[in-house]
Amino acid sequence: MKKIAVLTSGGDAPGMNACLRAVVRTGIYHGLEVYGIMYGYDGMIKGEIHKMESHSVSNIVQRGGTILKSARSNEFRTKEGRQKAYEQIKKHGIEGLVAIGGDGTFTGAKIFFEEFGIPTIGCPGTIDNDIYGTDYTIGFDTAINTALEAIDKIRDTAAAHDRIFFIEVMGRDSGYIAVECGIGGGAEMVMVPETKTTLNEVVEKLKGLRKSKTSSVVVVAEGDEEGSAAEIMEKVKNTIKDDTKDFKVTTLGHIQRGGSPTGKDRMLASRCGMAAVDGLLSGEANCMAGIIHDEIVYTKFEDCISKNKPLNEDTLKLIEILSI
Amino acid sequence: MKKIAVLTSGGDAPGMNACLRAVVRTGIYHGLEVYGIMYGYDGMIKGEIHKMESHSVSNIVQRGGTILKSARSNEFRTKEGRQKAYEQIKKHGIEGLVAIGGDGTFTGAKIFFEEFGIPTIGCPGTIDNDIYGTDYTIGFDTAINTALEAIDKIRDTAAAHDRIFFIEVMGRDSGYIAVECGIGGGAEMVMVPETKTTLNEVVEKLKGLRKSKTSSVVVVAEGDEEGSAAEIMEKVKNTIKDDTKDFKVTTLGHIQRGGSPTGKDRMLASRCGMAAVDGLLSGEANCMAGIIHDEIVYTKFEDCISKNKPLNEDTLKLIEILSI
Amino acid sequence: MKKIAVLTSGGDAPGMNACLRAVVRTGIYHGLEVYGIMYGYDGMIKGEIHKMESHSVSNIVQRGGTILKSARSNEFRTKEGRQKAYEQIKKHGIEGLVAIGGDGTFTGAKIFFEEFGIPTIGCPGTIDNDIYGTDYTIGFDTAINTALEAIDKIRDTAAAHDRIFFIEVMGRDSGYIAVECGIGGGAEMVMVPETKTTLNEVVEKLKGLRKSKTSSVVVVAEGDEEGSAAEIMEKVKNTIKDDTKDFKVTTLGHIQRGGSPTGKDRMLASRCGMAAVDGLLSGEANCMAGIIHDEIVYTKFEDCISKNKPLNEDTLKLIEILSI
Amino acid sequence: MKKIAVLTSGGDAPGMNACLRAVVRTGIYHGLEVYGIMYGYDGMIKGEIHKMESHSVSNIVQRGGTILKSARSNEFRTKEGRQKAYEQIKKHGIEGLVAIGGDGTFTGAKIFFEEFGIPTIGCPGTIDNDIYGTDYTIGFDTAINTALEAIDKIRDTAAAHDRIFFIEVMGRDSGYIAVECGIGGGAEMVMVPETKTTLNEVVEKLKGLRKSKTSSVVVVAEGDEEGSAAEIMEKVKNTIKDDTKDFKVTTLGHIQRGGSPTGKDRMLASRCGMAAVDGLLSGEANCMAGIIHDEIVYTKFEDCISKNKPLNEDTLKLIEILSI
Repeated sequence: MKKIAVLTSGGDAPGMNACLRAVVRTGIYHGLEVYGIMYGYDGMIKGEIHKMESHSVSNIVQRGGTILKSARSNEFRTKEGRQKAYEQIKKHGIEGLVAIGGDGTFTGAKIFFEEFGIPTIGCPGTIDNDIYGTDYTIGFDTAINTALEAIDKIRDTAAAHDRIFFIEVMGRDSGYIAVECGIGGGAEMVMVPETKTTLNEVVEKLKGLRKSKTSSVVVVAEGDEEGSAAEIMEKVKNTIKDDTKDFKVTTLGHIQRGGSPTGKDRMLASRCGMAAVDGLLSGEANCMAGIIHDEIVYTKFEDCISKNKPLNEDTLKLIEILSI
Repeated sequence: MKKIAVLTSGGDAPGMNACLRAVVRTGIYHGLEVYGIMYGYDGMIKGEIHKMESHSVSNIVQRGGTILKSARSNEFRTKEGRQKAYEQIKKHGIEGLVAIGGDGTFTGAKIFFEEFGIPTIGCPGTIDNDIYGTDYTIGFDTAINTALEAIDKIRDTAAAHDRIFFIEVMGRDSGYIAVECGIGGGAEMVMVPETKTTLNEVVEKLKGLRKSKTSSVVVVAEGDEEGSAAEIMEKVKNTIKDDTKDFKVTTLGHIQRGGSPTGKDRMLASRCGMAAVDGLLSGEANCMAGIIHDEIVYTKFEDCISKNKPLNEDTLKLIEILSI
Repeated sequence: MKKIAVLTSGGDAPGMNACLRAVVRTGIYHGLEVYGIMYGYDGMIKGEIHKMESHSVSNIVQRGGTILKSARSNEFRTKEGRQKAYEQIKKHGIEGLVAIGGDGTFTGAKIFFEEFGIPTIGCPGTIDNDIYGTDYTIGFDTAINTALEAIDKIRDTAAAHDRIFFIEVMGRDSGYIAVECGIGGGAEMVMVPETKTTLNEVVEKLKGLRKSKTSSVVVVAEGDEEGSAAEIMEKVKNTIKDDTKDFKVTTLGHIQRGGSPTGKDRMLASRCGMAAVDGLLSGEANCMAGIIHDEIVYTKFEDCISKNKPLNEDTLKLIEILSI
Repeated sequence: MKKIAVLTSGGDAPGMNACLRAVVRTGIYHGLEVYGIMYGYDGMIKGEIHKMESHSVSNIVQRGGTILKSARSNEFRTKEGRQKAYEQIKKHGIEGLVAIGGDGTFTGAKIFFEEFGIPTIGCPGTIDNDIYGTDYTIGFDTAINTALEAIDKIRDTAAAHDRIFFIEVMGRDSGYIAVECGIGGGAEMVMVPETKTTLNEVVEKLKGLRKSKTSSVVVVAEGDEEGSAAEIMEKVKNTIKDDTKDFKVTTLGHIQRGGSPTGKDRMLASRCGMAAVDGLLSGEANCMAGIIHDEIVYTKFEDCISKNKPLNEDTLKLIEILSI
């Protein structure tokens, strides 16, 4: 293998640049030429492919976003689109790919590998942490800390006014972010898609806490089955009917995707990026490089996509105990 | 004067604690007894009044929120309520008051002074910066920096995906926060209540920028006449009809009220708090202690409440130029 | 078991308060009375022992330092001191102890247990991460992120002036902090006590980089065998003798001990605190509650103290590759 | 005027990039060609001069350092050096200059203007705030906030251990940073070059505080006449001889120069940058564009260099009162 390429795809996550830097430098260290593909699969189709040098990734380890940019590609979902992409890859003489992204990214990579046989290794870049085959995903730790900083600020104002705040964090299908934010933010409750929490339980819990606590915070994952934080807040407020309490809602939104990556995410990203290149060189393909129990593990894309990473329910117990 | 009291009222703002600390310590330094009133005017009515020592305000200069808590008081708007409050003040032998808050706080203080003659001095504590009689209000600088950190993060993800983001910041009646965030955040446009910006202008500006810029940020003050950022985004999106662009919206919300105050706010708060006590001791009353051109200025509550502090429209020009 | 007590001892670490909160609330949740001992073993000797309620630990999960304060106790190293401490413990009817701290704390706890049989469980609270029996210690992740924020700032100024910076981070006996900061901070070299790096190697590496890089950062653990960062910088500068380069040194110092804990540290602290109480209730004693591979593990104090946790040398390789 | 150039020189300061962005875009807005000179006067001599477009300064408003880099130039101090610089300026057809920096930068610009008549306007870029002709310098507010974040962290550990900390901040000739950090950081004392504070006074103050305070912070400007913070700490410690107290020292160093600029600094930098170009277009020269009482003011370089900006000694009084 002489030439490899790297792309970032799907929702961006802090640490993607650190991962990219590791891919480029590990490649160059081992004598490879490394190419960067702009805008994910879309740029692959359009041939936006540039040679990268060591200095191309200087001073980006601490940057949010991705210098390769990211995009969704409907065209890559078609056979014709992937054919065009393959022609570009061939044209540049690229023999291996590193794809940094999430489920969707790996699904594309898997099909592309099956159709054209270009060895591809993925790196888990998504803030949601819901990918099988790695303890953590790149960007998750940063998203948690960004959300916690916001929650800490909201607690200041909640405490000053004896308010009840519903805070919505990201997590369409998974409650990882909500649970860690709930524990770290000292929340009174957490509502996640994985478990059923009825509005009645919320009402009862908040009523019970009124004796001991003047302000409360409920963290809601955006994918909770009871609706958005704003909807839940409205319903709870109408049920509790306590004029002495202000009910407020804040949806953290896209700030969770940006920002300089934490140390943990820079380390994870760097190790996964290096492992992806090492994997390509040692014959791995069609799999993701993740870290489980501090060891590099290559997991087949098929498993990454199809298997579930369950939420540790002990941590939900922790929230119940710590919120007394 | 031997005994004074201090309260925080209205929406909390970062720096209120630093101001409170200055009031307490300046009072004690000059041989006064200083009392803290909990929950603003409501606590005054209920007699939640406690003696404060120097160590009562230790280690709070850097804390968001207010250790005296804040609340709205409907009862204080009635003659009966204020009568009760006065009796509490008399009972404790309090001869002067410092009220930290905004317009509403000063309106209450003014009526209370006119009815009962307790000398009162205000300190401008609100993130909105819309109080006549001071260049800046306590909390404004922190709110700007909190919003900018969020906008910087959103720019990371906007740039990674070539997106157009509408970001709503606080400011029901004034565009101060929006304008400073617009300039500091490198926004392409700012929409504020003070000036009319039509949706058509937004659409034209964004279309014009598409040639030179891949991503754009529009900062919207919550009180803009065209509606909320979410409503504006929806309308603009439907008019532009560009499928290659993602339109997104984020409402920063209450994170802007919390957090550790900036150096500027700690300094302003400390100086205003000291000036309030100095003012009481030198016979000032029924006025606010603010800072204009680096000098302490006492402005009658009446003027603070009734006069407008106009937005510097030169800064709007600055945004137009810097966004090319 | 009806009554337990908790103390923090040794150098403080961010997350100690989160750990304390978990101990107090888990204890109360299980029907125990929980006492807080001020100033570590010193306060135990002097009887500075107070009952804690759930609200005693409200709003501290995000605070640096320790509300129980910490101190070194020479008296506790004597039999007489420990005898006095025991009498206080007996007097208060305390039947179990949780000691949050590092090696020294556990050594004290071990002797005390052997002499008086009070069941004690430790929680690993130290920024150094050098404790056997847990993947990470409470405070380590925060220290890394604090150091990285500083290094990111220094890189700004290093890059603006094409300078070579030597940055000293904490770690008297271990290079954990230096290594993670080196990778996350994009350092060109890392010098740690665990491995021998000669000044000559530093000089050669820096000379080699001069062609490709205009500025460089070398991270030095305070315990490196070649001396302090300032000493190393001076020697390297005198050897390289390149007038076109500025050599600078910064010693990060005690900022690494303070600050609001990261999400990781809040989570680790909460889980260890809960596990300590659970352990006491299920008969564990004379051991530390740590987390290995995401599972709670109780490790005998003797092992925590005597066994080494080796640095993962693969990560040193990572720095070499990433700094090309 | 058709072509102007811009450079950054001297010690870098956060906000230099925001200033540069304003210079470039204001120039282009008014139909000028704008050139960037790398490495300050050194790059001018060597002809490292590049045309800048609007997108050359995209996404840098929030970046620390300076993308034009900075350097000291001994050659520019010679007539020959300046002659070479002038030839480069002529060669590129540059008719006006903007120089972002401090005293040294303006001294160079003044001589260059007197010798060759190229109209030059300065922007005050230095963290030290010691430039006559502007209320604040670009970078000062960021340096304060960076130092305060560090001091807040140190206070956490100081409070946990009842320690006395001496913290050295930047300011070789001026105490601006020390004073604002002292007030904002809740310091017990501040030592600055402008006023004489004897070691005896420090000792007496700290002894006096021992009854009321368990931990103390003394902020020392690096240029204080009693020596460095480390030297002062050593002497004070040896005089007080109190074994129950730990004395510690931290020198914040170069972290104060880096980091993302605050809102205040981005605004100041943007306004000064625009004013510099406006000034060139309206015939100003040989002067600095600063902001006094919220108005743009052009001050002759001669005055900027020779006149003193005195420290507001009222603020020293504030520290005395607030530290009781």
